[in-house]
Amino acid sequence: MERAEVTRRIVEAKRKLGLKWIDIASVIDRSEAWTATALLGQGTLTNEESAKVGDLLGLDPEAVAALTVIPYRGTTVPMPPTDPLIYRFYEILLVYGPAIKDLIHEKFGDGIMSAIDYEMDIQRVEDPKGDRVVVTLNGKFLTYKKW
Amino acid sequence: MERAEVTRRIVEAKRKLGLKWIDIASVIDRSEAWTATALLGQGTLTNEESAKVGDLLGLDPEAVAALTVIPYRGTTVPMPPTDPLIYRFYEILLVYGPAIKDLIHEKFGDGIMSAIDYEMDIQRVEDPKGDRVVVTLNGKFLTYKKW
Amino acid sequence: MERAEVTRRIVEAKRKLGLKWIDIASVIDRSEAWTATALLGQGTLTNEESAKVGDLLGLDPEAVAALTVIPYRGTTVPMPPTDPLIYRFYEILLVYGPAIKDLIHEKFGDGIMSAIDYEMDIQRVEDPKGDRVVVTLNGKFLTYKKW
Amino acid sequence: MERAEVTRRIVEAKRKLGLKWIDIASVIDRSEAWTATALLGQGTLTNEESAKVGDLLGLDPEAVAALTVIPYRGTTVPMPPTDPLIYRFYEILLVYGPAIKDLIHEKFGDGIMSAIDYEMDIQRVEDPKGDRVVVTLNGKFLTYKKW
Amino acid sequence: MERAEVTRRIVEAKRKLGLKWIDIASVIDRSEAWTATALLGQGTLTNEESAKVGDLLGLDPEAVAALTVIPYRGTTVPMPPTDPLIYRFYEILLVYGPAIKDLIHEKFGDGIMSAIDYEMDIQRVEDPKGDRVVVTLNGKFLTYKKW
Amino acid sequence: MERAEVTRRIVEAKRKLGLKWIDIASVIDRSEAWTATALLGQGTLTNEESAKVGDLLGLDPEAVAALTVIPYRGTTVPMPPTDPLIYRFYEILLVYGPAIKDLIHEKFGDGIMSAIDYEMDIQRVEDPKGDRVVVTLNGKFLTYKKW
Amino acid sequence: MERAEVTRRIVEAKRKLGLKWIDIASVIDRSEAWTATALLGQGTLTNEESAKVGDLLGLDPEAVAALTVIPYRGTTVPMPPTDPLIYRFYEILLVYGPAIKDLIHEKFGDGIMSAIDYEMDIQRVEDPKGDRVVVTLNGKFLTYKKW
Amino acid sequence: MERAEVTRRIVEAKRKLGLKWIDIASVIDRSEAWTATALLGQGTLTNEESAKVGDLLGLDPEAVAALTVIPYRGTTVPMPPTDPLIYRFYEILLVYGPAIKDLIHEKFGDGIMSAIDYEMDIQRVEDPKGDRVVVTLNGKFLTYKKW
Amino acid sequence: MERAEVTRRIVEAKRKLGLKWIDIASVIDRSEAWTATALLGQGTLTNEESAKVGDLLGLDPEAVAALTVIPYRGTTVPMPPTDPLIYRFYEILLVYGPAIKDLIHEKFGDGIMSAIDYEMDIQRVEDPKGDRVVVTLNGKFLTYKKW
Amino acid sequence: MERAEVTRRIVEAKRKLGLKWIDIASVIDRSEAWTATALLGQGTLTNEESAKVGDLLGLDPEAVAALTVIPYRGTTVPMPPTDPLIYRFYEILLVYGPAIKDLIHEKFGDGIMSAIDYEMDIQRVEDPKGDRVVVTLNGKFLTYKKW
Repeated sequence: MERAEVTRRIVEAKRKLGLKWIDIASVIDRSEAWTATALLGQGTLTNEESAKVGDLLGLDPEAVAALTVIPYRGTTVPMPPTDPLIYRFYEILLVYGPAIKDLIHEKFGDGIMSAIDYEMDIQRVEDPKGDRVVVTLNGKFLTYKKW
Repeated sequence: MERAEVTRRIVEAKRKLGLKWIDIASVIDRSEAWTATALLGQGTLTNEESAKVGDLLGLDPEAVAALTVIPYRGTTVPMPPTDPLIYRFYEILLVYGPAIKDLIHEKFGDGIMSAIDYEMDIQRVEDPKGDRVVVTLNGKFLTYKKW
Repeated sequence: MERAEVTRRIVEAKRKLGLKWIDIASVIDRSEAWTATALLGQGTLTNEESAKVGDLLGLDPEAVAALTVIPYRGTTVPMPPTDPLIYRFYEILLVYGPAIKDLIHEKFGDGIMSAIDYEMDIQRVEDPKGDRVVVTLNGKFLTYKKW
Repeated sequence: MERAEVTRRIVEAKRKLGLKWIDIASVIDRSEAWTATALLGQGTLTNEESAKVGDLLGLDPEAVAALTVIPYRGTTVPMPPTDPLIYRFYEILLVYGPAIKDLIHEKFGDGIMSAIDYEMDIQRVEDPKGDRVVVTLNGKFLTYKKW
Repeated sequence: MERAEVTRRIVEAKRKLGLKWIDIASVIDRSEAWTATALLGQGTLTNEESAKVGDLLGLDPEAVAALTVIPYRGTTVPMPPTDPLIYRFYEILLVYGPAIKDLIHEKFGDGIMSAIDYEMDIQRVEDPKGDRVVVTLNGKFLTYKKW
Repeated sequence: MERAEVTRRIVEAKRKLGLKWIDIASVIDRSEAWTATALLGQGTLTNEESAKVGDLLGLDPEAVAALTVIPYRGTTVPMPPTDPLIYRFYEILLVYGPAIKDLIHEKFGDGIMSAIDYEMDIQRVEDPKGDRVVVTLNGKFLTYKKW
Repeated sequence: MERAEVTRRIVEAKRKLGLKWIDIASVIDRSEAWTATALLGQGTLTNEESAKVGDLLGLDPEAVAALTVIPYRGTTVPMPPTDPLIYRFYEILLVYGPAIKDLIHEKFGDGIMSAIDYEMDIQRVEDPKGDRVVVTLNGKFLTYKKW
Repeated sequence: MERAEVTRRIVEAKRKLGLKWIDIASVIDRSEAWTATALLGQGTLTNEESAKVGDLLGLDPEAVAALTVIPYRGTTVPMPPTDPLIYRFYEILLVYGPAIKDLIHEKFGDGIMSAIDYEMDIQRVEDPKGDRVVVTLNGKFLTYKKW
Repeated sequence: MERAEVTRRIVEAKRKLGLKWIDIASVIDRSEAWTATALLGQGTLTNEESAKVGDLLGLDPEAVAALTVIPYRGTTVPMPPTDPLIYRFYEILLVYGPAIKDLIHEKFGDGIMSAIDYEMDIQRVEDPKGDRVVVTLNGKFLTYKKW
Repeated sequence: MERAEVTRRIVEAKRKLGLKWIDIASVIDRSEAWTATALLGQGTLTNEESAKVGDLLGLDPEAVAALTVIPYRGTTVPMPPTDPLIYRFYEILLVYGPAIKDLIHEKFGDGIMSAIDYEMDIQRVEDPKGDRVVVTLNGKFLTYKKW
């Protein structure tokens, strides 16, 4: 089964069951952000995790098996993104990218923030002038090797 | 004077004077992230801010004036980014973008995170397994208007 | 059900019933512009709105449910637009874009017009030399935050 | 003289003289929107208009002459736009484009809104919840000819 | 029914019936060029025209109805065109485009040739050195409005 | 000397001398369309033609020599064209291209209209409802060889 | 029937029957290169040729008819080509293109090699250091018309 | 010295001296096709070859040295090519590419024609119906290795 | 049968049977790298190899036959790659490409590393600081021919 | 000083001095591959390394300083690469990319090969059938974090 088809079924089942990502995450003892990422087709579940998710969402065995296969990542977001919510993060790269690069180099030297040894978190922070989205990107710094 | 030329001079002066962004930021009482963003050509300074930066970095009056002009933003990062540090953030959009969209909608409803009423912060967090880059993106949630 | 399929059914039902957007809009007490936008796959209806539209157009429950899901926006217009009507608006950006940017900055300072806290209106204005299309774009000004 | 160079000089002179577009427009008895469009390199001035603008801004004869030459339009905005202010209008095409097309057809039949027999206006409208940018696009409707 | 599917059926029926565009055009009292354009998915027929074409080609009611819907134009020719016949016209723009622009401006001033108030004609002209294709493009001149 | 520089000088000299393309064409006994095409950098002049044009426009010997070198064609029009006048012809390909292809095949069989054994003409045709631009494209039909 | 589907059937039948292009070519008295080109969807057969090919390959009448329809050419090779064999010819354009242009101009003057009045041939030439592919491209020279 | 600048000087000197590629080729005992390729910036000369070419064309020592440096190839032809002569070869790939691939595989098996162990030749062949350009591409067949 | 469909079945069968590439490779006496490459649709099997693979994986005769047909290569990886694992190799070209080119030229002269007479190997090398992926690319050097 | 200008001077000095990368590498006690990478603008030198390289190549202080600034990487190789040597590695991604991905996952699980904690080596291996280029890519395996 194509992973995209599995994703479609998960989204459909989640909606019909009225579940939130945190509900699914709690079943497999993962964060909501990782769980959403993986179940939207961008991560790999262990057999045990996949079975639990399958039970919760009522997936058939073929779909459960597909969730344990390492996916081709990155195929669902067209670039540049047409969706305004995702585009704003793209715009942040355009506008704030040079500053991000320079500040990381200032604090760490030559290297990058890993997008693999990486976790993220999304919070709603109340604010009288309008609640705020706070996205925390947290990646290990990797120093450029010289040899 | 072209803004790109002003940026070039700022970067050069900053390097020769051995300054960090936090040093420049402290002169105008701004965060290092905003200061780096603006002085790398992506923000607008008040006359007062520009004069102070000009004094610190030894910029000529024409460059000082140019910093107060609202810039055409987003022209310095090619897309997709060729620089590995910036690319990792682009990759985060490809891989984590669908989860970011879904989680924000779950927590806030239909709308976006503003990239204008927005601030960010970059920290180095010590970790025995390798220090980590923690980037916090903080934007006001804007609800899609229905009329 | 894919949102594109729902859109297809709405367009078909609207044509067969001989309805105009204003007819559908009046059922949910919204403007014709917002109603057309949402039902062409770019907006989210409340359960109540969706039920009313479903009744009017004879949509099945699955389609009614799909209208309440926040969509991936922006996927139906190829860029640059191949359709001449839509292209003219793209051309307006090419030709008038720099003036629009400069005039907004002159009147408001550094920031943007929101496309989220936004409404629009389209009118036919009679004119002896040929009636005119008048499109009004109305968005909240958002000031660039400095922090 | 290249038109882009003339534009650069106009922008510089306007800034140094502390003029607004409306000030320049009043000298040639045109609207501020048309004046900004033309002087940013996207329109053609008569000899008389060009002379008056040249006097006001202190342009040399070669620059004055260049303003009367019909320009290659559309060369200054990269697509998709990287600047957030201009991008929002591009996003409006992505999200609202299908509704704009359908509503114009509903009101006028098969044809387009002209971007040539066209005028526009930009206003600041006060609003206690935040002032609003109101952009009015006004173009003659052109019916598709059948022959 | 998708317009592309209607086009496919028209092309198939036309071939099986051994008709030429001029034969179809004569039934609706239009030129062969407009008739071919419209029936290849780029124009809108009146109910009467559509009924006549449907009778001639044996189209079912759903296809007949689809011909009266204003289409999304321009979706069938990839750009740059891969087909050599269409590419030659694209090449004409590359090579002769600057001269076309300059000559029209010399004869008419600042404005464009309309592609909406437009007709065209294609003729075979005998020539002992090889017959020639003569394509006549005829569009109303539209003067750029100043306001 | 780069051909683009020669073109720039020709355009400048033509404007200062107040000449039209037909004036230059008459000196070398060519049509205005070919003359404009060639002098805008898309054609090759004989030594004699180049000398006459050089005399008329006051070009220096290096520029005169450059006009006799076969150019790299097609480098001055970006695709898709940003200039509205040229874009309309591009749009004609998008909208009328399939009909043009089919009608030429109907009249000639399998082959193309040459863009090399080709001439064109641009006329202003008076019309009480607005004068019209009439562009005639005239190319030899070339039959696809079978071997 | 879509031409792509006919091509698919031809390739399948050819493989199952163990035929080479030369075998099919001999039935219609054409070269193997033209035959392969046409049957891979890039050429037009006469009714007689199509019937013979249909007999040989066991095509049904609809497929036989489809081979006589003039195709949209050039739709099967993505550019740049991803297939290494085809890419090498693309690379030849990148590396040898300027020399090809200059040498043809030196030998013929201003014009092009026709790709319509064109034939080609592909031979295997034995060589002790490794057999060689020899592709001969043979097109009529077309002189740029001046008028 | 940039190789592009060396190329420019070679082309200029060749034109002023009235030389053909065959004249330059004879000095270094190479074919005209290879000589044109290399001197247009796509090949590497030995010190001896470079010195001879430098003497013939009057190049300075820096230019002579630059001809012996292995170049970055393929940077001078934009893709798709805008020049009609070069475009025809690109079109040959679009139209004849699938047949070329299939015929080479039929004659040689799985592999490619080398564009490195490669030579080519361009001839003018007289023909009463119009002289023909005959381009011979001759490359070693390379079999795909299996291991 | 489309090769992509055969690939899909192979991947599915391999997963269900719990095989690794080395298991399949051992049946046909090839390396795991070549076997994976070929069975993922990028190589050609002999009849014997294909039959053995078909037996092992339980493929039907049509799929077995399809594996012996020379494929159109390179169609499964979008460029730039969206998958992070594949992207890192793309990034290696961006960052290390100039050094690779220069070092190969320094050691071999003007030419290339063949991607046809080529083999590769992928190993896991244990390392206390984290195991390493070692990819060895091994291609015959091909000298640029001069003629 | 722009890094590209520094690179240009290094390449020029290296050529004039007749040095190889290994000669420069030995001065700073690094591998030739890293040294070439860094000095071609893709790496950062320590002050000490930079001073030594500057002494060897005769660089001025500004160039020496520029080598210690962390560069924007990846700006010198256009994608897809036009140079045949670099293109072959790009082709390896197209053809062998899926196998590389699958084999690494088979040996390591879900993650990537780092291009940062990475080294490479290029060797000439003698072979009677033609010497071979052996490129070894050696990167730390990074496991996808789950949280």
